Amino acid sequence: MSEQALDHLIKLLSGLPSLGPRSARRVALHMIQNKEGLMKPLANALLDASDNIKTCHICHNLDTVSPCRICQEAKRDSHTICLVSSVADVWAIERAGHYKGLYHIIGGTLSAIDGITPDDLNLTTLVHRVRDQDVKEVIIALSATVDGQTTAHYITDLISNLNVKTTGLARGIPTGGELDFLDDSTIATAFKSRKDVL
Amino acid sequence: MSEQALDHLIKLLSGLPSLGPRSARRVALHMIQNKEGLMKPLANALLDASDNIKTCHICHNLDTVSPCRICQEAKRDSHTICLVSSVADVWAIERAGHYKGLYHIIGGTLSAIDGITPDDLNLTTLVHRVRDQDVKEVIIALSATVDGQTTAHYITDLISNLNVKTTGLARGIPTGGELDFLDDSTIATAFKSRKDVL
Repeated sequence: MSEQALDHLIKLLSGLPSLGPRSARRVALHMIQNKEGLMKPLANALLDASDNIKTCHICHNLDTVSPCRICQEAKRDSHTICLVSSVADVWAIERAGHYKGLYHIIGGTLSAIDGITPDDLNLTTLVHRVRDQDVKEVIIALSATVDGQTTAHYITDLISNLNVKTTGLARGIPTGGELDFLDDSTIATAFKSRKDVL
Repeated sequence: MSEQALDHLIKLLSGLPSLGPRSARRVALHMIQNKEGLMKPLANALLDASDNIKTCHICHNLDTVSPCRICQEAKRDSHTICLVSSVADVWAIERAGHYKGLYHIIGGTLSAIDGITPDDLNLTTLVHRVRDQDVKEVIIALSATVDGQTTAHYITDLISNLNVKTTGLARGIPTGGELDFLDDSTIATAFKSRKDVL
Protein backbone atom coordinates (compact mmCIF):
# COMPACT_ATOMS: atom_id res chain seq x y z
CA MET A 1 0.00 0.00 0.00
CA SER A 2 2.85 2.36 0.79
CA GLU A 3 3.93 2.10 -2.85
CA GLN A 4 0.77 3.92 -3.91
CA ALA A 5 0.14 5.90 -0.74
CA LEU A 6 -0.97 8.95 -2.68
CA ASP A 7 -3.33 7.11 -5.06
CA HIS A 8 -4.90 5.31 -2.11
CA LEU A 9 -5.41 8.56 -0.22
CA ILE A 10 -6.94 10.31 -3.24
CA LYS A 11 -9.29 7.37 -3.84
CA LEU A 12 -10.55 7.51 -0.25
CA LEU A 13 -10.94 11.30 -0.36
CA SER A 14 -12.84 11.24 -3.65
CA GLY A 15 -15.49 9.01 -2.04
CA LEU A 16 -16.45 11.73 0.45
CA PRO A 17 -19.58 13.82 -0.16
CA SER A 18 -18.92 17.07 -2.06
CA LEU A 19 -15.48 15.88 -3.22
CA GLY A 20 -14.97 14.47 -6.70
CA PRO A 21 -11.74 13.03 -8.16
CA ARG A 22 -10.48 16.49 -9.10
CA SER A 23 -11.07 18.20 -5.78
CA ALA A 24 -9.76 15.09 -3.97
CA ARG A 25 -6.46 15.57 -5.79
CA ARG A 26 -6.41 19.24 -4.83
CA VAL A 27 -7.10 18.37 -1.19
CA ALA A 28 -4.37 15.70 -1.16
CA LEU A 29 -1.79 18.08 -2.64
CA HIS A 30 -2.80 20.81 -0.23
CA MET A 31 -2.35 18.46 2.72
CA ILE A 32 1.01 17.13 1.53
CA GLN A 33 2.29 20.68 1.39
CA ASN A 34 1.41 21.08 5.06
CA LYS A 35 2.10 17.70 6.64
CA GLU A 36 2.77 18.82 10.20
CA GLY A 37 0.17 21.56 10.42
CA LEU A 38 -2.71 19.83 8.67
CA MET A 39 -2.22 16.23 7.55
CA LYS A 40 -1.15 14.70 10.87
CA PRO A 41 -3.60 16.74 12.99
CA LEU A 42 -6.40 15.68 10.65
CA ALA A 43 -5.38 12.02 10.85
CA ASN A 44 -5.34 12.25 14.64
CA ALA A 45 -8.67 14.08 14.74
CA LEU A 46 -10.19 11.31 12.63
CA LEU A 47 -8.84 8.59 14.91
CA ASP A 48 -9.92 10.54 17.98
CA ALA A 49 -13.42 11.08 16.63
CA SER A 50 -13.65 7.49 15.48
CA ASP A 51 -12.77 6.22 18.97
CA ASN A 52 -14.74 8.67 21.05
CA ILE A 53 -17.91 9.71 19.26
CA LYS A 54 -20.98 7.72 20.16
CA THR A 55 -24.71 7.97 19.64
CA CYS A 56 -26.74 9.34 22.55
CA HIS A 57 -29.04 6.54 23.74
CA ILE A 58 -31.80 9.03 24.53
CA CYS A 59 -32.02 11.35 21.53
CA HIS A 60 -29.61 9.68 19.01
CA ASN A 61 -27.43 12.79 18.79
CA LEU A 62 -23.69 12.33 18.25
CA ASP A 63 -21.37 13.26 21.09
CA THR A 64 -18.41 12.00 23.06
CA VAL A 65 -20.74 11.18 25.94
CA SER A 66 -24.07 9.38 26.18
CA PRO A 67 -26.46 10.91 27.21
CA CYS A 68 -25.21 13.75 25.02
CA ARG A 69 -24.44 17.19 26.38
CA ILE A 70 -27.80 18.55 25.19
CA CYS A 71 -29.74 15.82 27.03
CA GLN A 72 -27.59 16.42 30.14
CA GLU A 73 -28.03 20.19 30.21
CA ALA A 74 -30.14 20.95 33.28
CA LYS A 75 -31.45 24.32 32.14
CA ARG A 76 -33.10 22.99 28.99
CA ASP A 77 -36.86 22.53 28.90
CA SER A 78 -37.29 18.77 29.18
CA HIS A 79 -41.02 18.99 28.46
CA THR A 80 -40.45 19.91 24.83
CA ILE A 81 -38.94 17.61 22.23
CA CYS A 82 -37.99 18.80 18.76
CA LEU A 83 -38.11 15.95 16.28
CA VAL A 84 -35.57 16.23 13.46
CA SER A 85 -34.28 14.02 10.71
CA SER A 86 -30.51 14.17 11.23
CA VAL A 87 -27.73 15.51 13.45
CA ALA A 88 -27.09 18.27 10.89
CA ASP A 89 -30.59 19.60 11.64
CA VAL A 90 -29.77 19.76 15.37
CA TRP A 91 -26.65 21.78 14.53
CA ALA A 92 -28.67 24.16 12.34
CA ILE A 93 -31.29 24.71 15.06
CA GLU A 94 -28.61 25.15 17.74
CA ARG A 95 -26.86 27.72 15.55
CA ALA A 96 -30.10 29.69 15.30
CA GLY A 97 -29.97 29.76 19.10
CA HIS A 98 -33.69 30.16 19.70
CA TYR A 99 -34.82 26.69 20.77
CA LYS A 100 -34.17 25.63 24.37
CA GLY A 101 -35.80 22.20 24.58
CA LEU A 102 -34.52 18.70 23.84
CA TYR A 103 -34.22 16.85 20.54
CA HIS A 104 -35.07 13.50 19.06
CA ILE A 105 -33.22 12.48 15.90
CA ILE A 106 -35.18 9.94 13.90
CA GLY A 107 -32.33 9.34 11.46
CA GLY A 108 -34.02 9.97 8.12
CA THR A 109 -37.44 10.28 6.52
CA LEU A 110 -39.84 7.66 5.23
CA SER A 111 -39.13 7.07 1.57
CA ALA A 112 -40.70 4.57 -0.78
CA ILE A 113 -37.92 5.10 -3.34
CA ASP A 114 -35.05 4.52 -0.89
CA GLY A 115 -36.98 1.77 0.89
CA ILE A 116 -36.96 3.51 4.28
CA THR A 117 -39.79 2.18 6.43
CA PRO A 118 -40.88 3.20 9.96
CA ASP A 119 -38.70 0.36 11.29
CA ASP A 120 -35.60 2.13 10.00
CA LEU A 121 -36.34 5.29 12.01
CA ASN A 122 -35.79 5.87 15.73
CA LEU A 123 -39.50 5.87 16.53
CA THR A 124 -39.69 3.28 19.32
CA THR A 125 -37.47 5.40 21.55
CA LEU A 126 -39.57 8.45 20.65
CA VAL A 127 -42.80 6.76 21.76
CA HIS A 128 -41.13 5.62 25.00
CA ARG A 129 -39.85 9.13 25.73
CA VAL A 130 -43.23 10.73 25.06
CA ARG A 131 -45.12 8.12 27.09
CA ASP A 132 -42.80 7.64 30.05
CA GLN A 133 -41.40 11.11 30.54
CA ASP A 134 -43.40 14.23 31.13
CA VAL A 135 -43.35 15.51 27.54
CA LYS A 136 -45.87 18.25 26.83
CA GLU A 137 -45.05 19.19 23.23
CA VAL A 138 -43.42 17.51 20.24
CA ILE A 139 -42.29 20.00 17.57
CA ILE A 140 -41.99 18.19 14.26
CA ALA A 141 -39.16 19.97 12.42
CA LEU A 142 -38.82 17.90 9.25
CA SER A 143 -38.03 19.26 5.80
CA ALA A 144 -40.91 20.73 3.79
CA THR A 145 -40.50 18.01 1.16
CA VAL A 146 -42.93 15.25 0.19
CA ASP A 147 -40.97 12.65 2.18
CA GLY A 148 -40.59 14.99 5.15
CA GLN A 149 -44.30 15.77 5.26
CA THR A 150 -45.28 12.10 4.81
CA THR A 151 -43.06 11.27 7.78
CA ALA A 152 -44.56 14.13 9.79
CA HIS A 153 -48.09 12.80 9.16
CA TYR A 154 -47.04 9.27 10.11
CA ILE A 155 -45.49 10.44 13.38
CA THR A 156 -48.44 12.70 14.22
CA ASP A 157 -50.68 9.61 13.91
CA LEU A 158 -48.26 7.49 15.92
CA ILE A 159 -48.25 9.77 18.96
CA SER A 160 -51.79 11.13 18.62
CA ASN A 161 -53.16 9.05 21.53
CA LEU A 162 -50.27 9.80 23.90
CA ASN A 163 -51.77 13.03 25.24
CA VAL A 164 -49.08 15.32 23.84
CA LYS A 165 -49.35 18.51 21.83
CA THR A 166 -47.89 18.12 18.34
CA THR A 167 -46.78 21.19 16.40
CA GLY A 168 -44.97 21.89 13.15
CA LEU A 169 -42.68 24.73 12.14
CA ALA A 170 -44.37 27.75 10.58
CA ARG A 171 -44.39 27.89 6.79
CA GLY A 172 -43.95 31.13 4.87
CA ILE A 173 -41.49 33.49 3.28
CA PRO A 174 -37.93 32.99 4.58
CA THR A 175 -36.02 35.97 5.99
CA GLY A 176 -34.44 37.85 3.11
CA GLY A 177 -36.65 36.05 0.61
CA GLU A 178 -37.58 38.12 -2.42
CA LEU A 179 -41.08 37.43 -3.68
CA ASP A 180 -39.86 37.40 -7.26
CA PHE A 181 -37.57 34.43 -6.56
CA LEU A 182 -39.87 32.33 -4.36
CA ASP A 183 -41.79 29.36 -5.70
CA ASP A 184 -45.57 29.43 -6.10
CA SER A 185 -46.20 27.02 -3.24
CA THR A 186 -44.28 29.16 -0.72
CA ILE A 187 -46.17 32.28 -1.77
CA ALA A 188 -49.53 30.48 -1.62
CA THR A 189 -48.73 29.11 1.85
CA ALA A 190 -47.63 32.54 3.04
CA PHE A 191 -50.93 34.02 1.86
CA LYS A 192 -52.98 31.29 3.52
CA SER A 193 -51.13 31.70 6.83
CA ARG A 194 -51.07 35.51 6.75
CA LYS A 195 -51.20 37.33 10.08
CA ASP A 196 -52.60 40.61 11.36
CA VAL A 197 -50.00 43.35 11.38
CA LEU A 198 -49.81 44.35 15.05
CA MET B 1 -9.54 17.85 22.92
CA SER B 2 -11.60 14.69 23.12
CA GLU B 3 -14.40 16.75 24.65
CA GLN B 4 -14.96 18.48 21.34
CA ALA B 5 -13.67 15.79 19.01
CA LEU B 6 -16.36 16.49 16.45
CA ASP B 7 -15.96 20.28 16.44
CA HIS B 8 -12.22 19.91 16.11
CA LEU B 9 -12.58 17.51 13.19
CA ILE B 10 -15.08 19.76 11.40
CA LYS B 11 -12.83 22.77 11.88
CA LEU B 12 -9.87 20.96 10.31
CA LEU B 13 -11.99 19.66 7.44
CA SER B 14 -13.46 23.07 6.68
CA GLY B 15 -9.96 24.43 6.10
CA LEU B 16 -9.40 22.11 3.15
CA PRO B 17 -9.74 23.46 -0.38
CA SER B 18 -13.22 23.00 -1.89
CA LEU B 19 -14.76 22.32 1.54
CA GLY B 20 -16.61 25.04 3.44
CA PRO B 21 -18.12 24.80 6.93
CA ARG B 22 -21.31 23.27 5.57
CA SER B 23 -19.73 20.56 3.43
CA ALA B 24 -17.20 19.86 6.21
CA ARG B 25 -20.13 19.01 8.50
CA ARG B 26 -21.62 16.75 5.83
CA VAL B 27 -18.28 15.00 5.36
CA ALA B 28 -17.83 14.54 9.12
CA LEU B 29 -21.33 13.06 9.53
CA HIS B 30 -20.80 10.79 6.52
CA MET B 31 -17.57 9.49 8.01
CA ILE B 32 -18.99 8.93 11.48
CA GLN B 33 -21.70 6.79 9.95
CA ASN B 34 -19.00 4.57 8.45
CA LYS B 35 -16.21 4.51 11.01
CA GLU B 36 -14.66 1.16 10.12
CA GLY B 37 -15.01 1.35 6.36
CA LEU B 38 -14.03 4.97 5.84
CA MET B 39 -12.93 6.99 8.86
CA LYS B 40 -10.15 4.70 10.12
CA PRO B 41 -8.84 3.79 6.65
CA LEU B 42 -8.70 7.50 5.79
CA ALA B 43 -6.85 8.32 9.02
CA ASN B 44 -4.35 5.56 8.27
CA ALA B 45 -3.96 6.65 4.64
CA LEU B 46 -3.19 10.18 5.85
CA LEU B 47 -0.57 8.97 8.33
CA ASP B 48 0.91 6.64 5.71
CA ALA B 49 1.10 9.39 3.08
CA SER B 50 2.48 11.85 5.63
CA ASP B 51 5.28 9.44 6.55
CA ASN B 52 6.15 8.14 3.11
CA ILE B 53 5.63 10.79 0.48
CA LYS B 54 8.69 12.80 -0.40
CA THR B 55 9.73 15.26 -3.10
CA CYS B 56 11.85 13.89 -5.94
CA HIS B 57 15.26 15.61 -5.76
CA ILE B 58 15.53 15.66 -9.56
CA CYS B 59 12.16 16.86 -10.84
CA HIS B 60 10.34 17.88 -7.57
CA ASN B 61 7.50 15.42 -8.21
CA LEU B 62 5.81 13.79 -5.21
CA ASP B 63 6.34 10.06 -4.73
CA THR B 64 7.23 7.47 -2.11
CA VAL B 65 10.71 7.22 -3.62
CA SER B 66 13.29 9.79 -4.70
CA PRO B 67 14.14 9.86 -7.61
CA CYS B 68 10.44 9.44 -8.38
CA ARG B 69 9.11 6.59 -10.49
CA ILE B 70 8.87 8.82 -13.57
CA CYS B 71 12.54 9.85 -13.31
CA GLN B 72 13.51 6.20 -12.75
CA GLU B 73 11.59 4.81 -15.72
CA ALA B 74 14.19 3.64 -18.23
CA LYS B 75 12.01 3.77 -21.31
CA ARG B 76 11.23 7.48 -21.00
CA ASP B 77 12.94 9.96 -23.28
CA SER B 78 15.50 11.61 -20.98
CA HIS B 79 16.39 14.22 -23.62
CA THR B 80 13.04 15.99 -23.25
CA ILE B 81 11.90 17.85 -20.14
CA CYS B 82 8.37 19.16 -19.75
CA LEU B 83 8.30 22.14 -17.41
CA VAL B 84 5.10 22.43 -15.38
CA SER B 85 3.89 24.50 -12.47
CA SER B 86 2.61 21.84 -10.06
CA VAL B 87 2.26 18.11 -9.43
CA ALA B 88 -1.39 18.32 -10.51
CA ASP B 89 -0.18 19.31 -13.99
CA VAL B 90 2.03 16.20 -14.14
CA TRP B 91 -1.00 14.08 -13.26
CA ALA B 92 -3.09 15.77 -15.98
CA ILE B 93 -0.40 15.22 -18.62
CA GLU B 94 0.14 11.61 -17.51
CA ARG B 95 -3.61 10.99 -17.75
CA ALA B 96 -3.58 12.24 -21.33
CA GLY B 97 -0.98 9.52 -21.93
CA HIS B 98 0.75 11.15 -24.90
CA TYR B 99 3.96 12.56 -23.41
CA LYS B 100 6.85 10.16 -22.82
CA GLY B 101 9.65 12.44 -21.59
CA LEU B 102 10.60 13.66 -18.12
CA TYR B 103 9.19 16.54 -16.06
CA HIS B 104 10.43 19.47 -14.05
CA ILE B 105 8.02 20.96 -11.52
CA ILE B 106 8.86 24.56 -10.76
CA GLY B 107 6.29 24.81 -7.97
CA GLY B 108 4.26 27.85 -9.02
CA THR B 109 4.36 30.83 -11.34
CA LEU B 110 5.93 34.25 -10.93
CA SER B 111 3.38 36.59 -9.42
CA ALA B 112 3.77 40.17 -8.35
CA ILE B 113 0.52 40.05 -6.39
CA ASP B 114 1.42 36.92 -4.41
CA GLY B 115 5.06 38.02 -4.12
CA ILE B 116 6.45 34.94 -5.87
CA THR B 117 9.91 35.70 -7.27
CA PRO B 118 12.27 33.50 -9.33
CA ASP B 119 13.96 32.49 -6.06
CA ASP B 120 10.74 30.79 -4.94
CA LEU B 121 10.66 28.52 -7.98
CA ASN B 122 12.75 25.40 -8.63
CA LEU B 123 14.83 27.05 -11.35
CA THR B 124 18.38 26.33 -10.13
CA THR B 125 17.82 22.58 -10.46
CA LEU B 126 16.31 23.17 -13.90
CA VAL B 127 19.38 25.05 -15.13
CA HIS B 128 21.64 22.30 -13.72
CA ARG B 129 19.64 19.57 -15.43
CA VAL B 130 19.61 21.36 -18.77
CA ARG B 131 23.32 22.18 -18.61
CA ASP B 132 24.75 18.98 -17.15
CA GLN B 133 22.53 16.34 -18.68
CA ASP B 134 21.98 15.80 -22.36
CA VAL B 135 18.67 17.70 -22.62
CA LYS B 136 17.63 18.53 -26.18
CA GLU B 137 14.21 20.11 -25.66
CA VAL B 138 12.39 21.91 -22.86
CA ILE B 139 8.61 22.02 -23.37
CA ILE B 140 7.16 24.88 -21.33
CA ALA B 141 3.68 23.72 -20.31
CA LEU B 142 2.49 26.56 -18.10
CA SER B 143 -1.07 27.89 -17.94
CA ALA B 144 -2.15 30.37 -20.61
CA THR B 145 -2.64 33.06 -17.97
CA VAL B 146 -0.73 36.33 -17.57
CA ASP B 147 1.37 34.91 -14.71
CA GLY B 148 1.97 31.67 -16.59
CA GLN B 149 3.13 33.45 -19.72
CA THR B 150 5.33 35.87 -17.76
CA THR B 151 7.01 32.89 -16.13
CA ALA B 152 7.40 31.19 -19.52
CA HIS B 153 9.17 34.26 -20.92
CA TYR B 154 11.43 34.49 -17.88
CA ILE B 155 12.44 30.83 -18.17
CA THR B 156 12.95 31.06 -21.93
CA ASP B 157 15.42 33.90 -21.27
CA LEU B 158 17.08 31.98 -18.45
CA ILE B 159 17.90 28.93 -20.54
CA SER B 160 18.34 30.69 -23.88
CA ASN B 161 22.15 30.38 -23.88
CA LEU B 162 22.19 26.72 -22.81
CA ASN B 163 21.92 25.33 -26.33
CA VAL B 164 18.50 23.72 -25.82
CA LYS B 165 15.37 23.91 -27.94
CA THR B 166 12.52 25.61 -26.04
CA THR B 167 8.94 24.98 -27.13
CA GLY B 168 5.48 25.86 -25.82
CA LEU B 169 2.19 24.00 -26.04
CA ALA B 170 0.02 24.78 -29.08
CA ARG B 171 -2.74 27.35 -28.53
CA GLY B 172 -6.13 27.05 -30.20
CA ILE B 173 -9.63 25.68 -29.87
CA PRO B 174 -9.89 22.86 -27.28
CA THR B 175 -11.36 19.51 -28.29
CA GLY B 176 -15.13 19.74 -28.05
CA GLY B 177 -14.97 23.54 -27.89
CA GLU B 178 -17.94 25.30 -29.42
CA LEU B 179 -17.01 28.56 -31.15
CA ASP B 180 -20.02 30.25 -29.64
CA PHE B 181 -18.75 29.65 -26.10
CA LEU B 182 -15.05 30.41 -26.62
CA ASP B 183 -13.52 33.72 -25.62
CA ASP B 184 -12.31 36.21 -28.22
CA SER B 185 -8.63 35.67 -27.47
CA THR B 186 -8.85 31.89 -28.07
CA ILE B 187 -10.64 32.43 -31.39
CA ALA B 188 -8.12 35.09 -32.48
CA THR B 189 -5.19 32.82 -31.58
CA ALA B 190 -6.79 29.91 -33.41
CA PHE B 191 -7.15 32.08 -36.54
CA LYS B 192 -3.56 33.32 -36.34
CA SER B 193 -2.20 29.77 -35.91
CA ARG B 194 -4.48 28.21 -38.53
CA LYS B 195 -3.12 25.24 -40.48
CA ASP B 196 -3.56 23.83 -43.97
CA VAL B 197 -6.17 21.10 -44.10
CA LEU B 198 -4.20 18.11 -45.35
